[in-house]
Amino acid sequence: MKFRISKEAFLDGLQKVQHVVSSRTTLPILSNVLLVAKDGRIQFTTTDLDVGITGSVEAQIEKEGATTLPAKRLVSIIRELPSSEVEISVDGKNHASIRSGPSFFKIIGLGEAEFPPLPDFEGAKVFKIPQQTLRDGLKKTSYAISTDETRYVLNGIFTSFRDGKMTLVATDGRRLAMVDADLEFPASHETDVIIPTKAVQELQRLLGDAGEVIVKLSDSQISFTVGDSLLASKLIEGNYPNYRQVIPGDSNERVVISREALLETVRRVSLLSSDKSNSVKLVFSENHIEVTANSPDVGEAQESMDVIYQGPPMQIAFNPEFLQAPLRALDSNDVYLDLIDEMSPGVLRIEGTFLYVLMPMRVTN
Amino acid sequence: MKFRISKEAFLDGLQKVQHVVSSRTTLPILSNVLLVAKDGRIQFTTTDLDVGITGSVEAQIEKEGATTLPAKRLVSIIRELPSSEVEISVDGKNHASIRSGPSFFKIIGLGEAEFPPLPDFEGAKVFKIPQQTLRDGLKKTSYAISTDETRYVLNGIFTSFRDGKMTLVATDGRRLAMVDADLEFPASHETDVIIPTKAVQELQRLLGDAGEVIVKLSDSQISFTVGDSLLASKLIEGNYPNYRQVIPGDSNERVVISREALLETVRRVSLLSSDKSNSVKLVFSENHIEVTANSPDVGEAQESMDVIYQGPPMQIAFNPEFLQAPLRALDSNDVYLDLIDEMSPGVLRIEGTFLYVLMPMRVTN
Repeated sequence: MKFRISKEAFLDGLQKVQHVVSSRTTLPILSNVLLVAKDGRIQFTTTDLDVGITGSVEAQIEKEGATTLPAKRLVSIIRELPSSEVEISVDGKNHASIRSGPSFFKIIGLGEAEFPPLPDFEGAKVFKIPQQTLRDGLKKTSYAISTDETRYVLNGIFTSFRDGKMTLVATDGRRLAMVDADLEFPASHETDVIIPTKAVQELQRLLGDAGEVIVKLSDSQISFTVGDSLLASKLIEGNYPNYRQVIPGDSNERVVISREALLETVRRVSLLSSDKSNSVKLVFSENHIEVTANSPDVGEAQESMDVIYQGPPMQIAFNPEFLQAPLRALDSNDVYLDLIDEMSPGVLRIEGTFLYVLMPMRVTN
Repeated sequence: MKFRISKEAFLDGLQKVQHVVSSRTTLPILSNVLLVAKDGRIQFTTTDLDVGITGSVEAQIEKEGATTLPAKRLVSIIRELPSSEVEISVDGKNHASIRSGPSFFKIIGLGEAEFPPLPDFEGAKVFKIPQQTLRDGLKKTSYAISTDETRYVLNGIFTSFRDGKMTLVATDGRRLAMVDADLEFPASHETDVIIPTKAVQELQRLLGDAGEVIVKLSDSQISFTVGDSLLASKLIEGNYPNYRQVIPGDSNERVVISREALLETVRRVSLLSSDKSNSVKLVFSENHIEVTANSPDVGEAQESMDVIYQGPPMQIAFNPEFLQAPLRALDSNDVYLDLIDEMSPGVLRIEGTFLYVLMPMRVTN
């Protein structure tokens, strides 16, 4: 196996797949990237057995072949190379020689036969989704994924294809984010799956603004094809909780708030939230919110905001990080906060299908 | 105590003193910054009892006074303030009210009487040093300070005022950096002191390109005055090792090398140094160096450089980080590497008074 490639292209190909490589693995081959030189391209593949990713870049192939090389070390070497041209040749023992300007590196790889193949998606259900739609949906929900490993069904995004819609849901039990989008697919494709966090993160790196992503669904696996790149992942098995029952019915009051102003105010005021209560309090009066926090023995903060609000005086407290997370992910000018009372969940909405349910904290006076 | 100040000026004053505040302290007052409002300025002071620093900025004082407030929290609040104008008032209980635009913060401080005073330098020896000279000398030596806390006399820069010269030395036992500079001072001022690492770091932040720094030396303390700022520190007590005896005498061979090329080559090749040997080998032949490293089971690297060298073939191995550190701190185009043999320390020099002694590693073939 022998090829010439520009440093930039090689680095680009490696960087697209390197995040899947686990830093703590007992199986050495999983630290390696599979390189296949064929048909004028180098294909890069990595896997941690749960998630696998593959992509390719153009190269000048002098001799076709395949090998696997330690991914992180290869990235660190290629990044430092002195010249923009790289020549790589691999012998029968998987010893790779890397030449660039005055530099010569030899690194020892493992045979490609040991590398676990990515799953097969023959006979899978196929969906075509605009990349922009999926990217936007993941951005607006993924921050709410639970990181509690004991609740593994929540460690991913619940993705439902039903009634001509794709619905994405993420929750950690204290807040829930949901987005849906119209999507055409055959009725026989209706299904619900849970896509694990690591696949969601890789997918977010892969998706662009334009074009479609092709999604293939088998019984226990999902794949995403974006241009030349393919991401494959196991699905999370188990029953996702009935999230619809945590979405409150009719709310009593709607507050219209500038998204950015709320984000900044909450960020400032939360500097004085105590570690113990970890809450900010929102006190509503006509067209006005007072956001406050206090931390015993340290001090307190308060800031007032003009909003559109016609209801009676009321107050509610939220975890400041949970209130800020959706505000950072959204891009609309205004958000709507729908409230029932200070003990019931608040619901954040925008013009569009986004919805975020947030449990209140106990209000202390 | 009450004053108005611009957010930028307040942050600037705080940031100059905040690094001295220890994050793990059992004495709460040491987490605080002393604020004194007087004569149209706010003075900021912090101390960890070993090192203290003070500076001031202009402010519009409405009522003079003093208090101490938690330094890190104050920085985090001021940094986030929404308006460029800040008004601060402190009541008799050391509760500080901070107002800026729509924001209001109250933070609880401690009385200024509890704050430990900075040491007194009455009757101290006074030196005047160009800031540029001291800054340059610290930059070229401070990376070689030992971080081994069991060798506390090495945890600082040995500073000698003798024979019309200031000499700065740092070593960790495996390498030694030294710089000297002519300096005028009375013969009665001749002395040697060891300035601890933390004071060296603060001093590097303080020093600029122009003007003088006034150094005051008492028996156990040193202070540095730069403009409006004062840094005071305890000296390290104990005997610094006789560093002159580790500087080799006449060398056999001199190699003239491009500093930047050597730095980059060593950085690249060291990617394949093994964790165990942690060395790069330099193999010299006529006007040529081959820099190599190898790591069993991982691979090897080699890179060749053109240099000026007329001596016989020889080779020597160094710790790559120790070889790179002075190259990063210097700014000359070329460096000279003076060698005796592969078992003797190498000496790195430049045009000027800098000198760096580096112990070789065992060469393996």
